[in-house]
Amino acid sequence: MAGNTFGKLFKLTTFGESHGVAIGGIIDGCPSGLKLNLEAIQYELNRRKPGQSEIVTQRKEPDTVEFLSGIFEGVTTGTPIGFTIKNTNQKSNDYSHIKDVYRPSHADYTYEKKYGVRDYRGGGRSSARETASRVVAGAIAKQMLENIEIHAYTSSVGEIFLEKPYQDLDFSQVESNIVRCPDSETADKMIARIKEIKKQGDTIGGTITCVIKNVPVGLGEPVFDKLHADLGKAMLSINAVKGFEYGSGFCGAKMKGSEHNDLFNADGSTKTNLSGGIQGGISNGMDIYFRVAFKPVATIIQKQDALDSSGNIVEMQGKGRHDPCVVPRAIPIVEAMAALVIADFWLLNNINN
Amino acid sequence: MAGNTFGKLFKLTTFGESHGVAIGGIIDGCPSGLKLNLEAIQYELNRRKPGQSEIVTQRKEPDTVEFLSGIFEGVTTGTPIGFTIKNTNQKSNDYSHIKDVYRPSHADYTYEKKYGVRDYRGGGRSSARETASRVVAGAIAKQMLENIEIHAYTSSVGEIFLEKPYQDLDFSQVESNIVRCPDSETADKMIARIKEIKKQGDTIGGTITCVIKNVPVGLGEPVFDKLHADLGKAMLSINAVKGFEYGSGFCGAKMKGSEHNDLFNADGSTKTNLSGGIQGGISNGMDIYFRVAFKPVATIIQKQDALDSSGNIVEMQGKGRHDPCVVPRAIPIVEAMAALVIADFWLLNNINN
Amino acid sequence: MAGNTFGKLFKLTTFGESHGVAIGGIIDGCPSGLKLNLEAIQYELNRRKPGQSEIVTQRKEPDTVEFLSGIFEGVTTGTPIGFTIKNTNQKSNDYSHIKDVYRPSHADYTYEKKYGVRDYRGGGRSSARETASRVVAGAIAKQMLENIEIHAYTSSVGEIFLEKPYQDLDFSQVESNIVRCPDSETADKMIARIKEIKKQGDTIGGTITCVIKNVPVGLGEPVFDKLHADLGKAMLSINAVKGFEYGSGFCGAKMKGSEHNDLFNADGSTKTNLSGGIQGGISNGMDIYFRVAFKPVATIIQKQDALDSSGNIVEMQGKGRHDPCVVPRAIPIVEAMAALVIADFWLLNNINN
Amino acid sequence: MAGNTFGKLFKLTTFGESHGVAIGGIIDGCPSGLKLNLEAIQYELNRRKPGQSEIVTQRKEPDTVEFLSGIFEGVTTGTPIGFTIKNTNQKSNDYSHIKDVYRPSHADYTYEKKYGVRDYRGGGRSSARETASRVVAGAIAKQMLENIEIHAYTSSVGEIFLEKPYQDLDFSQVESNIVRCPDSETADKMIARIKEIKKQGDTIGGTITCVIKNVPVGLGEPVFDKLHADLGKAMLSINAVKGFEYGSGFCGAKMKGSEHNDLFNADGSTKTNLSGGIQGGISNGMDIYFRVAFKPVATIIQKQDALDSSGNIVEMQGKGRHDPCVVPRAIPIVEAMAALVIADFWLLNNINN
Repeated sequence: MAGNTFGKLFKLTTFGESHGVAIGGIIDGCPSGLKLNLEAIQYELNRRKPGQSEIVTQRKEPDTVEFLSGIFEGVTTGTPIGFTIKNTNQKSNDYSHIKDVYRPSHADYTYEKKYGVRDYRGGGRSSARETASRVVAGAIAKQMLENIEIHAYTSSVGEIFLEKPYQDLDFSQVESNIVRCPDSETADKMIARIKEIKKQGDTIGGTITCVIKNVPVGLGEPVFDKLHADLGKAMLSINAVKGFEYGSGFCGAKMKGSEHNDLFNADGSTKTNLSGGIQGGISNGMDIYFRVAFKPVATIIQKQDALDSSGNIVEMQGKGRHDPCVVPRAIPIVEAMAALVIADFWLLNNINN
Repeated sequence: MAGNTFGKLFKLTTFGESHGVAIGGIIDGCPSGLKLNLEAIQYELNRRKPGQSEIVTQRKEPDTVEFLSGIFEGVTTGTPIGFTIKNTNQKSNDYSHIKDVYRPSHADYTYEKKYGVRDYRGGGRSSARETASRVVAGAIAKQMLENIEIHAYTSSVGEIFLEKPYQDLDFSQVESNIVRCPDSETADKMIARIKEIKKQGDTIGGTITCVIKNVPVGLGEPVFDKLHADLGKAMLSINAVKGFEYGSGFCGAKMKGSEHNDLFNADGSTKTNLSGGIQGGISNGMDIYFRVAFKPVATIIQKQDALDSSGNIVEMQGKGRHDPCVVPRAIPIVEAMAALVIADFWLLNNINN
Repeated sequence: MAGNTFGKLFKLTTFGESHGVAIGGIIDGCPSGLKLNLEAIQYELNRRKPGQSEIVTQRKEPDTVEFLSGIFEGVTTGTPIGFTIKNTNQKSNDYSHIKDVYRPSHADYTYEKKYGVRDYRGGGRSSARETASRVVAGAIAKQMLENIEIHAYTSSVGEIFLEKPYQDLDFSQVESNIVRCPDSETADKMIARIKEIKKQGDTIGGTITCVIKNVPVGLGEPVFDKLHADLGKAMLSINAVKGFEYGSGFCGAKMKGSEHNDLFNADGSTKTNLSGGIQGGISNGMDIYFRVAFKPVATIIQKQDALDSSGNIVEMQGKGRHDPCVVPRAIPIVEAMAALVIADFWLLNNINN
Repeated sequence: MAGNTFGKLFKLTTFGESHGVAIGGIIDGCPSGLKLNLEAIQYELNRRKPGQSEIVTQRKEPDTVEFLSGIFEGVTTGTPIGFTIKNTNQKSNDYSHIKDVYRPSHADYTYEKKYGVRDYRGGGRSSARETASRVVAGAIAKQMLENIEIHAYTSSVGEIFLEKPYQDLDFSQVESNIVRCPDSETADKMIARIKEIKKQGDTIGGTITCVIKNVPVGLGEPVFDKLHADLGKAMLSINAVKGFEYGSGFCGAKMKGSEHNDLFNADGSTKTNLSGGIQGGISNGMDIYFRVAFKPVATIIQKQDALDSSGNIVEMQGKGRHDPCVVPRAIPIVEAMAALVIADFWLLNNINN
């Protein structure tokens, strides 16, 4: 109820603050007998970790996951998988200046008002550091869903958009550049833009597109737990996300039915896929694709007014080492959350079969 | 797990197919001692019901709710509120032509593949008729949340957009026209557009904007059950919805942090509200606003190819009486789902206080 | 959360007060494709209904179930099954004398204090009438679990015990007498005892034993949702239940390990079965058996002191038509709850297979 | 769903095997602002830990809890409390002899059949070692419920019963002897009996009685989540438990209504309390009391037949260091589970107030 669990059958519960002893989680419901590739899990964490390139925060955290249970001789046992990631780089002094200050467009104010107390160091629980635990769980879900492919990539940074449809992209190129845009020309522009923004001490938003291939027909549960509704919730639960659309999305709202309908082929596939691989909340076997909007990071290295706990407007300037654009590091998080949603419905779909 | 329950504390479970005996639901968790205004509940149902104007389906259903339990001498008792809405206008013969046919961009195919059997009459469970039960529950939630205002309105039909920000609108005008757009000039254009589309036997998409005022600080549960994540899921669970954005939404993804941050006033309110009333997944006391995209209705009164259960492509034409644009009737559904989300978090927030 | 839902995958939510319009429920999660035998469902309801014999309440209720959804052409569709049972015999005047009185050992006082308001007619929601909805759902669960046998029977009434172990009983004899004890000699004594008690205007307690055969190995989820823990909760949720034990039960607490251990046969079965068919919370393929204790009905047709809402001790005498012993009518309820628990774990066990 | 979470609002999820790296858990839903007494938590763990006296297992584990999150400057923050307890004494070699053997009346066989794989060391997940995590969470729940007293004590060992009713006991004497029976004379007999059993290489069962005082009126949720139903489930989820009864329990099933009814005093309290402090599943303000039956530990230091994974009956003898009677160490576990149940309903009850 307190919101730290995701999923119904493949269930992740996370804990941990940005500057506490450790973050981590429990995965409950991972089937037994799954031979885990631990390197593949760490690889996903490395894609998310700070300090990996010049366009992300320069904070250093090794982000090494330690598994405490649920795995025996390399294989899942069906019991809960507990894991931790130590917080090694806890420069808490960086944050003493915000102890009594609510930074604009951060969660300082709302946490304080809701809980009456908060761990102000690095945003505490509201920090995106928590998402590292999601990446661990998502990486395991991916391994369970061996035949399903999940590809996320940067589709815009500020006003720079990757105009090509996903069908024209080579997903193997996503990791070929530090902004994780599979089109090298657009990637270069995005990188240049982020560097420029960083130099200004400013930040910028962007969007991520995610494509899921080889999803079997039948995943998703009408009426409230439609597949896209749970994907939407999953994405909106990621820090800084402001919007979600799938298939034709907001563009579809401008169209006519005669343009928008996806006509069938004889094998049940469809000629077009404005539906985004989902009908009535249930996967139809076509590619699922969706787009996620991220706002610019709120911490900027410029002077700004803030509010202190005594009700005074005070001037402050962001310190610490922050991302000028969250999108490159959010790619593995989007994939992880997509994997968790698909894993959940995939298990649920086994029940009736 | 099978997806027919919404909410954690103020919990709605619905049942019913478009052409079965009845639809209905159970509301579990409504506090005791609430004096219900039954007329206000029926009023919301009337806003959703078919046949209410010339731009919606001409099907006739009285959509009268009958309460079976949980209310004693007009007051809620804290026990579950069971209710039904009879299906009186079950022109099932209208649907015999689709018994073995999967209509394009409908849920016929996915239901058949998932369940192996389906009630094909009027879309069965996948019909938006189910949302009438949500409207009943939402109307009760609204009464529980007496001081919170929820205003949804039509913000676009096809390419016709209401350009004014919500702050410039008079919400009392929403019901002054049949398209439920509070700006009469834009409303006229929208109505004309829908009539034109209807004449073509076609359909058109649109968007709904929803504004929630007077939400106390502190609603929402980090990290997975962020207030906007649950709002997003709620909206995406409504039939035909393709996208959700709140606050700055997809536009925010183009902005810089220095432009996007909402600076504080001394009282904790903010000068701007690109955040959309939510920080870190928790309400901050400012207006919550979001936008929902609806695709065009899939049933068109034009000849289209469809697939039959033997794998043949067959020509079909929509019969029955369908909406040329779902948006006007979806307004009370959006409000109802918003009320359910807020009610849930509002109860949850009582726990710690 | 408000306690009106049972089960995780095969989920029953019930509503309804003793003297409201109707009681009923929603079964969510019943797999599609199950051809329902409606007569078998009504048969179970008839076993529970009042007025069926001279040793139960003489109240008359036809208790006819009406299904509203989830079944199409006699087959479950995988969508929620909504159903109602009308309250036809609502002699509410029988209860005006308790409007402001809290009867001893009834739930009048606790409901009033918890909710501030209560439907006092016939106990309202606290009446065992609610269990009719459980019987409907349990009857469907039984049909899903076609190869699993669930046999409950009266094993004691007051001080009269059926001394034979269940292995020596012929379960086909349970329905051969009105007290539902499969040993005719003991049954006669029990019936005589109940008649005697009834003549005194008094009531008496009893126990029910339940045996479940052919449960596959592997049902139950450690560590909190052990199979016997959920069976125990299911039984304890039935009105008037005061205790639950399975396998060796309370007797096992007096034994030594060397006496209590069940040694294996080569095929994995065990020579003895003090474990009651469950090890570590998981079924082991042996018979599951347990015993449930029911207190005497609180309503007696004798003068008793009660408390009124003004804090006065007042004399009252039970009116209405009540059961001198609940056990005979509780047999189908115990079976229904057992079926719901097994159905739930049976579905859950499909996930990993 | 996989059974490793307990509670709805005050939610504990545990992980960990007997001989893995660590056990631990996440408490989600503990209110913010609670100043924790960490010594009191460790004290409860010490009451449960092995090696504490001559009548329990001589295994040595310090069982030191480390908190990783959710506490800031000694106060709970409302965010999840993650914690671990390291497994320091992992004499795994003790268990190589059971790698391919299913011990009688242990969970080896059912885990192997359910999951296809198992961590055989010390019973893996099925070991009662997991309950240490429950004790941590229960100790925190106790601190939240500051005015509520929870007292468990040993009420029988084998055939030796403490005959006095709980009202005649001095709970401050529970910790005055190693068997945790508050009557010194009976305690001496119990201790002697356990020593004798231990000398035989055998084990023995027993019962624990638990009394909860000062519970406010109104806790518990009808109809399925009755307070005693959740207490029952909580107790039955503890390793080795075979039965649960509350109030009059199985004895109540022998009684007449005229004997069993608890008559009111003018203040709403009752003259007798056969109801055990609960009416209709809701606490009535009187003492709650219940009794829990524990079977004898299955591991005995005697030769026994067992089954190997090839289907052969093999002779085996328990090694390792085991408890001759679990009851003394189970006292804090019973209290912890009771605290978790009460905490959950206590929070839930705040919602409507």
